[in-house]
Amino acid sequence: MQACNRAIIARMESPVPLIPQLGAHLVAAGGKRLRPLLTLASSRLCGYQSTPETQRHVGLAACVEFIHTATLLHDDVVDESNLRRGLASANAVFGNKASVLVGDFLFARSFQLMTADGSLKVMAILSDASATIAEGEVLQMVTQNDLSTPVDRYLEVIHGKTAALFAAACRVGAVVADRPEAEELALDRFGTNLGMAFQLVDDALDYAADQQVLGKTVGDDMREGKITLPVLAAYEAGSPEDRVFWERVIEKGEQTEADLPHALALIEKTGAIATTIARAQAYAAEAVDALSIFPDSELRRLMTETVQYTVDRAR
Amino acid sequence: MQACNRAIIARMESPVPLIPQLGAHLVAAGGKRLRPLLTLASSRLCGYQSTPETQRHVGLAACVEFIHTATLLHDDVVDESNLRRGLASANAVFGNKASVLVGDFLFARSFQLMTADGSLKVMAILSDASATIAEGEVLQMVTQNDLSTPVDRYLEVIHGKTAALFAAACRVGAVVADRPEAEELALDRFGTNLGMAFQLVDDALDYAADQQVLGKTVGDDMREGKITLPVLAAYEAGSPEDRVFWERVIEKGEQTEADLPHALALIEKTGAIATTIARAQAYAAEAVDALSIFPDSELRRLMTETVQYTVDRAR
Repeated sequence: MQACNRAIIARMESPVPLIPQLGAHLVAAGGKRLRPLLTLASSRLCGYQSTPETQRHVGLAACVEFIHTATLLHDDVVDESNLRRGLASANAVFGNKASVLVGDFLFARSFQLMTADGSLKVMAILSDASATIAEGEVLQMVTQNDLSTPVDRYLEVIHGKTAALFAAACRVGAVVADRPEAEELALDRFGTNLGMAFQLVDDALDYAADQQVLGKTVGDDMREGKITLPVLAAYEAGSPEDRVFWERVIEKGEQTEADLPHALALIEKTGAIATTIARAQAYAAEAVDALSIFPDSELRRLMTETVQYTVDRAR
Repeated sequence: MQACNRAIIARMESPVPLIPQLGAHLVAAGGKRLRPLLTLASSRLCGYQSTPETQRHVGLAACVEFIHTATLLHDDVVDESNLRRGLASANAVFGNKASVLVGDFLFARSFQLMTADGSLKVMAILSDASATIAEGEVLQMVTQNDLSTPVDRYLEVIHGKTAALFAAACRVGAVVADRPEAEELALDRFGTNLGMAFQLVDDALDYAADQQVLGKTVGDDMREGKITLPVLAAYEAGSPEDRVFWERVIEKGEQTEADLPHALALIEKTGAIATTIARAQAYAAEAVDALSIFPDSELRRLMTETVQYTVDRAR
């Protein structure tokens, strides 16, 4: 992981000083580095043997983090969120323009990293994932403020915006190790299901978590009129009066300060968090099951624990 | 070119309807399709033989247009321009969010098109160009409102934001034809110099052209405080009083309706357009010279005429 962090910093370099400056801001913010860790873990699980000259897993882990960071930067622009990873968002500090353009740079750099890796298979996996992410983000945008969004549509959104990159991050680990397709598909399934669980829990935490812990503002999703499972479940199970409330705050976007506590109370009352976490647990079980084709090992146990930890964050 | 337009429309497809909708808006707007034409012309100049099964030049021409369109969409966000290609900009019609996200989709799709082409060399050329474009856009942003920007820095900006993609569009034409490096480099040099000439003329037209012809508003660059050669030259050659004017409108961004006619008069008085066009002509001559390693042909003559036409737009 240290090698990966070094690669991230090294490949953030540019003769245009603002780029490494903004890069340093993001690297300092840290984040969980969950996606690059998945690439490193998956390649090792598949027995990838790296030498100082062949550190393909490190380059690809950095590549995956660049794609993710580019998405975050562009998400900052569109979502006008004020807090991200517990620090002021890049947007608030550097402005909309910088977020769009430095995001584009990181996205381009991720493709340079793939090209340097030199595997067409890896390139297909990661460029397909990039297109799926963009589709997911567009789909999220068009479902915004729309309480008639079916749950399946919401699942499609989080598959695109989150699970597709988790899946690709894991799958390329099997590719660099040159393993049979069954292992590639198993890691793809692991990543997809872990990503779905991760995003469901994230969406639950937005209506539940202590801001100190989460590093983002509770209620951000509500303020943006974002359609997530906690809201869909609370709306579905709500009284006629509850529904009027949700229609006002989510569909019309008319919100006052008293609305967030009331929303949290409705979500509590209708068991919407439990509904969301139950879904997350089902995906988590699928993720763990996907690893069963690999022999038992300390690493496999660690990956299984990561899945459980992802869901347990919500408790 | 028809095949290329078909490829553009086909590859704009997505299960998320907003993407082809916004795509159709851009395709309808048309534009000059100059960059994909360069790929098609360059590949033919290098003797690329396509069959219905191997239409690599068409796929790559579409790829180049996607990169360009993604940049335009993101440029709309950051520059708040109201007119682009004579139609309302995508941003004005669909909003900031859609421009960022659909731009990301087109960018990702361009990498899928490169991956489908399957040449690592092509991928390196186009992913390097994408990173250079983003660097140029960031550099343009940080020089905005700054009249102390040296001319060389301005040239670096337009190299990044425009000439790099022109160069890559031409160069990949030689690569698909599997020609010696000398031809690749000649087409790279042709594209770079044509791109520089093209952008210089574009920047001149922003202070000179009839809006009907150009399809963009005269004075857009001034309103945005953009640093271009016409402004740098007029500032450099201006009286102390002129300089106070430029510092107010460009550096402080304080503008009234009377300022645009006054700016156009100062640019006329100081010969700043002539200075800009002279530079463009020098690049154009380099572009024509770069083609001299290819034997004379009707296509070479057409490419030479395109260079001349690019500069003559400003008359």
